[in-house]
Amino acid sequence: MRTSQFPLSTVKETPADAEIISHRLMLRAGLIRKLAAGLYTWLPLGLRVLRNVERIVREEMNRAGALEVLMPAVQPAELWQESGRWEQYGPELLRLRDRHQREFCFGPTHEEIITDLARNELRSYKQLPVNFYQIQTKFRDEVRPRFGVMRAREFIMKDAYSFHLDRASLEQTYSEMYATYSRIFQRCGLAFRAVAADTGSIGGSASHEFHVLADSGEDAIAFASGSDYAANVELAEAIASCNAPPAAIETARLVNTPNAKTIAELVTQFNQPIERTIKTLVVAAPVTDANPSGLIALLVRGDHELNIVKASKCEGVASPLRMANEEEIRAAIGAGPGSLGPKDLPIPCIADRSVAVIADFSAGANQDGYHWFGLNWGRDLSLPPIADLRNVINGDPSPDGCGTLTIARGIEVGHIFQLGQKYSRALNTVVLDENGKAVILTMGCYGIGVSRVVAAAIEQNYDERGICWPVSIAPFTVALLPMKWNKSYRVREAAELLYEQLRTAGIDVLLDDRDARPGVMFADMELIGIPHRVVMSDKHLDAGQVEYQGRRDAAAQMMAVDAIVPFLTQQLTKALAV
Amino acid sequence: MRTSQFPLSTVKETPADAEIISHRLMLRAGLIRKLAAGLYTWLPLGLRVLRNVERIVREEMNRAGALEVLMPAVQPAELWQESGRWEQYGPELLRLRDRHQREFCFGPTHEEIITDLARNELRSYKQLPVNFYQIQTKFRDEVRPRFGVMRAREFIMKDAYSFHLDRASLEQTYSEMYATYSRIFQRCGLAFRAVAADTGSIGGSASHEFHVLADSGEDAIAFASGSDYAANVELAEAIASCNAPPAAIETARLVNTPNAKTIAELVTQFNQPIERTIKTLVVAAPVTDANPSGLIALLVRGDHELNIVKASKCEGVASPLRMANEEEIRAAIGAGPGSLGPKDLPIPCIADRSVAVIADFSAGANQDGYHWFGLNWGRDLSLPPIADLRNVINGDPSPDGCGTLTIARGIEVGHIFQLGQKYSRALNTVVLDENGKAVILTMGCYGIGVSRVVAAAIEQNYDERGICWPVSIAPFTVALLPMKWNKSYRVREAAELLYEQLRTAGIDVLLDDRDARPGVMFADMELIGIPHRVVMSDKHLDAGQVEYQGRRDAAAQMMAVDAIVPFLTQQLTKALAV
Repeated sequence: MRTSQFPLSTVKETPADAEIISHRLMLRAGLIRKLAAGLYTWLPLGLRVLRNVERIVREEMNRAGALEVLMPAVQPAELWQESGRWEQYGPELLRLRDRHQREFCFGPTHEEIITDLARNELRSYKQLPVNFYQIQTKFRDEVRPRFGVMRAREFIMKDAYSFHLDRASLEQTYSEMYATYSRIFQRCGLAFRAVAADTGSIGGSASHEFHVLADSGEDAIAFASGSDYAANVELAEAIASCNAPPAAIETARLVNTPNAKTIAELVTQFNQPIERTIKTLVVAAPVTDANPSGLIALLVRGDHELNIVKASKCEGVASPLRMANEEEIRAAIGAGPGSLGPKDLPIPCIADRSVAVIADFSAGANQDGYHWFGLNWGRDLSLPPIADLRNVINGDPSPDGCGTLTIARGIEVGHIFQLGQKYSRALNTVVLDENGKAVILTMGCYGIGVSRVVAAAIEQNYDERGICWPVSIAPFTVALLPMKWNKSYRVREAAELLYEQLRTAGIDVLLDDRDARPGVMFADMELIGIPHRVVMSDKHLDAGQVEYQGRRDAAAQMMAVDAIVPFLTQQLTKALAV
Repeated sequence: MRTSQFPLSTVKETPADAEIISHRLMLRAGLIRKLAAGLYTWLPLGLRVLRNVERIVREEMNRAGALEVLMPAVQPAELWQESGRWEQYGPELLRLRDRHQREFCFGPTHEEIITDLARNELRSYKQLPVNFYQIQTKFRDEVRPRFGVMRAREFIMKDAYSFHLDRASLEQTYSEMYATYSRIFQRCGLAFRAVAADTGSIGGSASHEFHVLADSGEDAIAFASGSDYAANVELAEAIASCNAPPAAIETARLVNTPNAKTIAELVTQFNQPIERTIKTLVVAAPVTDANPSGLIALLVRGDHELNIVKASKCEGVASPLRMANEEEIRAAIGAGPGSLGPKDLPIPCIADRSVAVIADFSAGANQDGYHWFGLNWGRDLSLPPIADLRNVINGDPSPDGCGTLTIARGIEVGHIFQLGQKYSRALNTVVLDENGKAVILTMGCYGIGVSRVVAAAIEQNYDERGICWPVSIAPFTVALLPMKWNKSYRVREAAELLYEQLRTAGIDVLLDDRDARPGVMFADMELIGIPHRVVMSDKHLDAGQVEYQGRRDAAAQMMAVDAIVPFLTQQLTKALAV
């Protein structure tokens, strides 16, 4: 392609309302334009990237034996009423009425539609398992659409739905989809992690999110140094770094700490090591004979954070979790929140696993302005019940025993679910098994935010000059920049020849025949992120050479004209090998 | 592909609510399934056809230098208000409100959106001409959706919009699009005609419809035997078959015709040649000094039909056209509608061109129960003003002088318009010309009903056994049917070998490995319309042969096993050459 026939829409200004780098770069590089809040037009350059992602997704879904279909975007309310989601779904569901006042929605997802198709098409266990997918336009009426296509209202999604006679079959397809998703993101050239996830409101029992790792990610995920283990920080199990506390050295002593109401103050004013301090957090509890106070204390190390999800699941904690206020705390304990601790505490408490294995620790004395220092379990106070109460942190042992955990930020681009029978039961979707008995189908579902992958790829691959596309999804893989296009017949002739040679070699090359200033051409090609750049000029040609620079290279290098096609072919082949 | 991995969804029953053959066959062959009125899911087999059409459209649009974009389906009301169409568009426009009660529609077309993009992106004449296109989901809330995907509510459309500095540039792109559309439908293997069309409500000045010829078509089109001339019957110019009437032979005579109130009765009861009878139709006229009656008579030959569009445009005819009722006619003329004629008619009249060149004709006498026979212009009455008033019929001379017209029925699958400045003016879309002067852009638009093409292709290509796909859009081009798959190791081995050879040759082959009865396999492959069929059996293999039959062939033929791959390759190459 030539820039004369494929005009670039790059802009210099950084768009004012773009908060994250991918949004800014997609606008500046001319990949998308905003039509209205959360609605974007894909310009030719952006669409090439989107189509590349689609192609990879389609190839890998087909390879996995999934069957591509295309369902309508507009869905009748009746099916959503049948599943119960017409009522459950909030205002994110864009509801509409047709000219006959019948109710529909612009589908944010297609479980109801595919399940209805399955109940009409599937009759026998012989048709199972089967996995249908589509690449299609969805709408979610986000209350605050932002970050460009990262959180748009209208977006492109690959959604797949598998049907099974039993859970063993579901688990097999689920594991194939896990492998397929891994291949897809690998082929897209992305650093990613599959993360064990909560199944949330969609229902079902097992689920993994696929996250592209990027500092701007909205989700914190923990992954192991020595294995594939990865989990959303909310779900990652926290293990204590040892099995028992070390031997006690200090003696317990009550210290007047009038100005230490926080862990930070305690550590600073009294030189206490933070990992030997205890935070005592009081939450609401159901009132029972055993615990008439209506409160329960949760103990975590001073350098740890309470994990709300985990704490909510503890026995004796009110659900949903609610922090006690100072009035409640004073009434039950006789001290303020800054002076609480497990010794002589008049309400029940639960200790985090890490709290149970420290010695010579300090904690509030349940008396305003006083802390105990040098406390030891067993000797000075009894060990309360133990639970996993905290968020994991960098360096924690991995719960699978393989190395330590690293916390990173991720952008969710894929999600696979073992749905079970939530929808097939609601829609009474059955087949006959080998014995002629009607069996409710078991389902899985598998989504990829195709348009979001484009934005996530940028969040992971950019520098101060613009986007650095992975080769497999780049809009073009080679930029060919001839200097003085209109003035030098020789450069022009050589560029045309190389252009044809590159095209013949199957390389997606963009020839910049605008006759623009070198600075403009260089800046544009760097901004739009073409992985390889070849510059041709009279001076270079005098030496029988071209100038080559990879998008991430620090400097250009000279290369013989004859060597450039084989070199690029080799580079691209290497980059695309998975 | 194998039927074990690509299950067919053929059904035997003819669906009750499918009125036309393509709808019936698309349901029976398992190409689509209905979700709700006018909403269809594309099953894997149908989607393969749809994608083939999309691919051809995309390749040809790219070849023509058009730039692919992707605009949102959901469009803000503001832009439609700016163009004035928010009010003008009827209930076919699916209007909706988002969670903030802002108004949107599900786009039935994208003129407003692309014009808005153009006014933001285009600054200079140097960026022109440019032609943007997309292949995208549209919604038209048809009052009575029917005929399957032929007239669905949600459908896939290719829409393109070109922008120009002046009309000459528009005309050039328009003519390129005309050629591109011709290539597209030719490559799809369809018999079609480009037809001059009325520009209707979309505005603009020149327009062609592309029709796939099929007996079930909703539109009647006229085309010349000796040229490319073709026009919608409503617009085709009707020429008289000669320049002047023959010499008079009969004498004029008033005849009592008490039981002849229609042309048919006159012809039957009095043996009058129908092409020498005159129908006198009375319509409303503006009341003027020259014509205080408020009526005007239109004369067409007894075997011709009045063309409402043409009649509406005649001077002295009220617009919109309204037929006079009997009361009005009796008050002005003194006779009923069955006895009217041009002789001694007290109101003005206009004669069709063909009426002006007949002799010895019969017509009502403006007196109940009487007709004139043997009338001749000039001798018995004066010739009234002449106009083109009728629909063309089979055998009429072509208006371009090249042969005669044939009337055929067509299905509109494409439409190209010279839009002019309707939208660019409304949205104030300007660029600077060479002199730095702001110029309002001139636009063209070009649509193809991609999903409709699939149905139209069937209407033109089927027989009593099912669909007969053109090779270029067939879901598979070769069906490979091994007999006794599970029993004959030899057949299975030979089939696997041939399957691999065909795939290696780049042929889309469907191997039926279901081990179904031969009758079932044959019926399925014929129903789904695979162009070429190869049968392998022990008996055939004994003779080193396979059985081959083209989908439209009357009988099968035997062919050496070694000959089949080259033969099919040749057949397919020939079929795909355009």
